[in-house]
Amino acid sequence: MSKSSFGLIGLGVMGRSLAQNILRNKFSLSVYNRDTPEEAHVLTSFLEHNASEILHGFTSLKEFVESLDSPRKILLMVSAGAPVDDVIGKLLPLLEEKDIVIDGGNSHYQDTEKRNERLGEKQIQYLGCGISGGEEGALKGPSIMPGGVEEAYKEVSGVLEAIAAKDKDGKACCSYVGSGGSGNFVKTIHNGIEYAEMQLIAECYHSLSLHKSNEEIAEIFERWNRTDLSSYLLEITIEILRKKEGDKYLLDLILDKAANKGTGSWSSQISLGNGMPTTMMTDAVFARYISTLKEKRVVLFKIVNRKTSSKDIDEVIVEDAYRFARLVNHQQGFSLVKKISDTNEWHVDLSEIARVWTNGCIIRSQLMEELVSLFRDIENIFDSKDMIARLSKLENGVASYLETSVRAKISTPVISSAYQYWLGMITDRLPANLIQAQRDFFGAHTYERIDSESGKFFHTNW
Amino acid sequence: MSKSSFGLIGLGVMGRSLAQNILRNKFSLSVYNRDTPEEAHVLTSFLEHNASEILHGFTSLKEFVESLDSPRKILLMVSAGAPVDDVIGKLLPLLEEKDIVIDGGNSHYQDTEKRNERLGEKQIQYLGCGISGGEEGALKGPSIMPGGVEEAYKEVSGVLEAIAAKDKDGKACCSYVGSGGSGNFVKTIHNGIEYAEMQLIAECYHSLSLHKSNEEIAEIFERWNRTDLSSYLLEITIEILRKKEGDKYLLDLILDKAANKGTGSWSSQISLGNGMPTTMMTDAVFARYISTLKEKRVVLFKIVNRKTSSKDIDEVIVEDAYRFARLVNHQQGFSLVKKISDTNEWHVDLSEIARVWTNGCIIRSQLMEELVSLFRDIENIFDSKDMIARLSKLENGVASYLETSVRAKISTPVISSAYQYWLGMITDRLPANLIQAQRDFFGAHTYERIDSESGKFFHTNW
Repeated sequence: MSKSSFGLIGLGVMGRSLAQNILRNKFSLSVYNRDTPEEAHVLTSFLEHNASEILHGFTSLKEFVESLDSPRKILLMVSAGAPVDDVIGKLLPLLEEKDIVIDGGNSHYQDTEKRNERLGEKQIQYLGCGISGGEEGALKGPSIMPGGVEEAYKEVSGVLEAIAAKDKDGKACCSYVGSGGSGNFVKTIHNGIEYAEMQLIAECYHSLSLHKSNEEIAEIFERWNRTDLSSYLLEITIEILRKKEGDKYLLDLILDKAANKGTGSWSSQISLGNGMPTTMMTDAVFARYISTLKEKRVVLFKIVNRKTSSKDIDEVIVEDAYRFARLVNHQQGFSLVKKISDTNEWHVDLSEIARVWTNGCIIRSQLMEELVSLFRDIENIFDSKDMIARLSKLENGVASYLETSVRAKISTPVISSAYQYWLGMITDRLPANLIQAQRDFFGAHTYERIDSESGKFFHTNW
Repeated sequence: MSKSSFGLIGLGVMGRSLAQNILRNKFSLSVYNRDTPEEAHVLTSFLEHNASEILHGFTSLKEFVESLDSPRKILLMVSAGAPVDDVIGKLLPLLEEKDIVIDGGNSHYQDTEKRNERLGEKQIQYLGCGISGGEEGALKGPSIMPGGVEEAYKEVSGVLEAIAAKDKDGKACCSYVGSGGSGNFVKTIHNGIEYAEMQLIAECYHSLSLHKSNEEIAEIFERWNRTDLSSYLLEITIEILRKKEGDKYLLDLILDKAANKGTGSWSSQISLGNGMPTTMMTDAVFARYISTLKEKRVVLFKIVNRKTSSKDIDEVIVEDAYRFARLVNHQQGFSLVKKISDTNEWHVDLSEIARVWTNGCIIRSQLMEELVSLFRDIENIFDSKDMIARLSKLENGVASYLETSVRAKISTPVISSAYQYWLGMITDRLPANLIQAQRDFFGAHTYERIDSESGKFFHTNW
């Protein structure tokens, strides 16, 4: 038996789809899945459905490793956290110097950094690789964000770039991000941006749904989708709005409790730990948490007895608000990428990240295409005079939207965050002077003065 | 030389003040400060200013430990993080079974849990002890939140309760919180609540300052402070507003860049990691981060060229908004305490925590006094019909305030968060059904239905 050029561990939804993608691209592949009672049929069923000369399946890790060409290239598609360490622990004694292990799950980038060190000590080359696109993306072409040992990336780039989505010029949506945990980090922030993008659409739907049918909202979103607002998420939302079950809209039958898998809260925790005000993704995570408190909400709803508004919200101001908030969300997300990249000296290329995100991933959009060019020249959306002009022009629209929503008592936490952040960022005078005075009053924490040089601190005996 | 009943390590601002407090309460005390070049004079200067028969000073850790009665009781007042582990590492070989180490700094509660385990293995009793009140509180009577080994607390309660602030009935504002890291945890959330309380006052000041002088604002706050809004933070704000330097108001000379020491972001990170939507403390942390981006703000201010509003904001709606937002902030903060207490089985008594916070600490207030009674019967502010009635009554005021601010383009991120959270919590229908549909569409993450039992999950082939 000839050896396989690539190995994959873990045949869950994502692993299975990626394996099929690899096979479709004619790379010989060994797959491993554990042989536990719950997963007894996973491997055999996969082999049955994908029978091919270039596919070999194993439930023995040793045989799996031995079936691979040197240096071995092994992609882990197991759950983030302890399972990754568990598999690495079992793999390590079987591997040789220069072998390459790729973690394709949603691992925390700081875990990846630790694993990188641990495996580096044994001369095993490690890559933490963000993969976005869900099941369909994994199968047809995901967006891939590999980070870690650069030499290792060169060895696996052939496979990864072949299975990746292609951008509008036919180039793979896969690009080496940087050293350490940068690949997983960038994927985490992708998801943070995604949380806010989803919540923004949900808030627009919420506002519009007070007086419009799902079909009418789908038509509005369709119009939006023919403009610069076009995106994958808007596209699937249109399909969702129109999906029927019998004579009912399926959407109306779905419970309003939004679950999460943690990457959104990681993004927010990272921003909080690094002085970066990514208010939108954070409030999007909190909006999901609030939604899960359904039982409490229903009780309070009955007590407070809130009447829904009788006032229609003009779809034009909803569109302005949505357009405005998306720009701010991308400004926040990319600023966070830049900041953590600088801190870790990863030298992440924002334009290249935007390019990798133009296809295959969940947040692909017309705006992302624009950002590819924009980030060639600048590193922050707010450094673009054109973007500032656009935001300024939309400002009255978003203000009207928020006024109306506040009066109508409809919650719009993330559009509201976008506007609040904008107002804070375009102000040369915030009331933070009072906060500094309070801190100095009770804790002698000192303050800077407007009539003194920066970095000089004063204390007052209040 | 007779042995001291208590030991204290670290004569920084807080350590020094606590030492003086302990001496004033007639406990014999040994103090240790390291003898580094930068801190060479710290110990001698302290001994000079506080000469007393019951005070002994050391720069040798060994002599310091030997000077203490058994079981030794040692309070660490060193910077949180590595310095605490460093001192513990040096102390450990000098200690004996049953000795008690108390960390009085702002340590992360999960670090405290690890230290508790580490010291427990050597039969050293560990307490992580939150202390609030700043320099003045430490000197005259802080609010103290000890957590960890309960038997150890009994040994040190005499000292801690003597030096603590007293509540309105003369009882010490010091109470055993629970096991593990609960003491430090509760202090962290105290600070999270504090961040939001400070930001709320800052937002009120900001709105009022557009058309009112500092003196006029001080008068308004003075009126508020004679109502149920009365608090320590409002009190010091009045003094700050009136403080003059020559013929200028000092507040006007302070730079609007608010620093932070991390406990606010810890609170928010904890809430994000535990499914709790504490939007207000989080947006308060972000507001500080935004303020630090002053240079960027000034550039954007010049480009966008925002005119300040010419419309006066009615002080009555500012007062309504402030009253509303404070209730919501305390609801969020105490809900977070409850949640983490439940998760860790700490059995934290919310009424007792509120009582400990009625004096000595930064967030002491009339409202906190009310919460002592309230939490005797319920565990969530939203479970009180009276509180819901109050919030409902204030709702139109806060809505008017936000409408006006949005139109006037004044940023009010945390009052806005309070209202958005409230609207989300009193709604039986949020657009989270769309988010669940999107997640199922692209990631096969499944959803629950309104026409099926809870906990049953569905997937659609969209």
